[in-house]
Amino acid sequence: MTFTIIPGGGVTAAKGFTAAGLHCGIKYKNPDLGIIYSRTPAQVGGVFTTNRVHAACIDINRNLLELGRPARAVVVNSGNANACTGEQGRQDSYRIQAIAAEALDIDPEHVYIASTGVIGVPLPMEALEQGIPRAVRQLDVDGGSAFSEAILTTDVVPKECAVQLSVGGRLVSIGGAAKGSGMIHPNMATMLSFIATDANLETGVLQPLVKELADQSFNMISVDGDTSTNDMALVLANGEAGNDALAPGRDGWDEFKEALLFVFLDLAKKIARDGEGATKLMQVTVKGAASIDDARHAARTVTRSPLVKTAVYGADANWGRILCAVGYADIPFDPEQTHIHIGPIEVYAGRALAFDEQAAREVLSRETVDITIDLRNGSYEATAYGCDLTEEYVNINASYRS
Amino acid sequence: MTFTIIPGGGVTAAKGFTAAGLHCGIKYKNPDLGIIYSRTPAQVGGVFTTNRVHAACIDINRNLLELGRPARAVVVNSGNANACTGEQGRQDSYRIQAIAAEALDIDPEHVYIASTGVIGVPLPMEALEQGIPRAVRQLDVDGGSAFSEAILTTDVVPKECAVQLSVGGRLVSIGGAAKGSGMIHPNMATMLSFIATDANLETGVLQPLVKELADQSFNMISVDGDTSTNDMALVLANGEAGNDALAPGRDGWDEFKEALLFVFLDLAKKIARDGEGATKLMQVTVKGAASIDDARHAARTVTRSPLVKTAVYGADANWGRILCAVGYADIPFDPEQTHIHIGPIEVYAGRALAFDEQAAREVLSRETVDITIDLRNGSYEATAYGCDLTEEYVNINASYRS
Repeated sequence: MTFTIIPGGGVTAAKGFTAAGLHCGIKYKNPDLGIIYSRTPAQVGGVFTTNRVHAACIDINRNLLELGRPARAVVVNSGNANACTGEQGRQDSYRIQAIAAEALDIDPEHVYIASTGVIGVPLPMEALEQGIPRAVRQLDVDGGSAFSEAILTTDVVPKECAVQLSVGGRLVSIGGAAKGSGMIHPNMATMLSFIATDANLETGVLQPLVKELADQSFNMISVDGDTSTNDMALVLANGEAGNDALAPGRDGWDEFKEALLFVFLDLAKKIARDGEGATKLMQVTVKGAASIDDARHAARTVTRSPLVKTAVYGADANWGRILCAVGYADIPFDPEQTHIHIGPIEVYAGRALAFDEQAAREVLSRETVDITIDLRNGSYEATAYGCDLTEEYVNINASYRS
Repeated sequence: MTFTIIPGGGVTAAKGFTAAGLHCGIKYKNPDLGIIYSRTPAQVGGVFTTNRVHAACIDINRNLLELGRPARAVVVNSGNANACTGEQGRQDSYRIQAIAAEALDIDPEHVYIASTGVIGVPLPMEALEQGIPRAVRQLDVDGGSAFSEAILTTDVVPKECAVQLSVGGRLVSIGGAAKGSGMIHPNMATMLSFIATDANLETGVLQPLVKELADQSFNMISVDGDTSTNDMALVLANGEAGNDALAPGRDGWDEFKEALLFVFLDLAKKIARDGEGATKLMQVTVKGAASIDDARHAARTVTRSPLVKTAVYGADANWGRILCAVGYADIPFDPEQTHIHIGPIEVYAGRALAFDEQAAREVLSRETVDITIDLRNGSYEATAYGCDLTEEYVNINASYRS
């Protein structure tokens, strides 16, 4: 590793970024409004839900990105997704941009926005009319953790990560915050992730990088297979570190990319681990696949299987369900050449193996469960991140109107 | 309807078929071995799991079908799927054919076989060596219900259906039995279905008919989205009704087809309703789709969504989750032109509607919940069948090694 982790760091770890989070009245009581502010215009890279049903904030951000608008602020509300709210929803989203722009004295087109929460209910705009200016007044370099709490819905814990590295003698920092929980099967799923860095980047290099790294991280997590209407991951880069502009092939690019991937993966795993009702993180690696797409698809299919998820919950070394899930992933492989490990324990090698059930139960009872499937059919490998399926998931979703 | 339902009828409703079911020792205590016997050779039509990981019984039956072998018997064991058992599993499957052929004094290639239960454990063949001849001795025209119980795993109730109709003055009967419960997302899923009719059919017309009707019934049910290693639906037609041979375009064909579809659908719905832990049947109709594939795929995607399933369990009229699931089905439609009904109550019409939440809760609390999504984007329609997702599903699957 050419970077170091900043203990307790979050979305304001990088130079020039401040943040705030507070309760404005969308939710009954918990924080429900967060803002990130960059004192200098930041390049933006982003990936968004592929769901045909998506909120106005998705269209607005996609449009800003395509127009190449830099970001000065990101405004996020939780408790209401402002999805399936039609023309009113669009107008309300524009109004959020306008309120923030006025309070910050910036261009509305430099305000990116995100919403998460209940679908189909109009936003309580009066709460935002008073809440956004109040949040702007609270913007602070120490506001990252308040922001990380304000974007949560049914999440149990806030999710933050920050790292720093040296690029050409300059200290570059990357910090992020995310929320996840339900409707998590990205391309994208409501997961929200906001990452801010002071790295100076050549124009045009951020968007392809964000897409590439999201495919290895946020797009490899699944809580329940439902792809949300409001997912997004945004990266802001304001250049305040003052390093020579980074671009593929230049000194420091590989190190920066490695550090940024670490932040993506760390936040992605935190989302998977904190899936609704989850008690553990499940990391499924498929290797020996004939293509990267096969490896990714098979790994995701296993993390999505309710039967695998319940077996992991029950600490049952049920390799038959794992193999069965790979089988319906519709990729080429031979079950009789395939090997499966649960943690370090080989449980299947083209046929059932005798293994220590008690030892397997112990491995499956840990907070992180690694499952490795070696197809021996090629050289590609991918890891997907999921969680177990528990009674609590059902409890939460039978009563919560998301 | 040109047919009548035979109350309490099952797989032996048609002339010339007998059946038996008993406990032979695969399970601890419950019935685990069933046989259907036809005194005259029966044409066979069948559909099988699309999972790359599948049991030897699937390959054996597919092969018999391709060779055009008629069926004299179907031997089914529950409690052990004989899947992922390699060469030993194949030999054991052939041995089942041989034991049955000897006991019945028929050709082993006229014995179709099926297994359901735990994956990866060798069959206890000594139980089958003594059990199959014993079951043969118990074959009886009243054995349908014993058969229907012997094929169950975690199912709560046996699933049978029988109808009769007149074809050219002859009485034609169709009877069936099925099991379902978990790993249900066919193409196929472990669901097993066995249907026997005494209709006389032209050679070659049964297989395409079974495929066509399965696509409207068994392939439209989902319990958990897991496609099993052992699914199959078999139809046997022994011609004993003595009607003039049926074929597309001839008198009586349409009526026979309608009656057979009724049996397929009835058994499919019984499987969905008795999904593991389920408390209700969910029928999702997508209409106004641009193609039949779009309609089917969208309907199935909604029945598969854990968030829709938990909302139905909680009797929550959460149309946002329904629309969201259609959104990620990746079919062309405009959310702002779409209408959603829960039972008779319109809850969404391109935008949120004010509706009587209490009335919706009552509709959602019934044993059968109908959800209709009108895309207004074409003229195709399909219905998918699923069930709610409950804590009990998690309980069952965290402890049962399937």
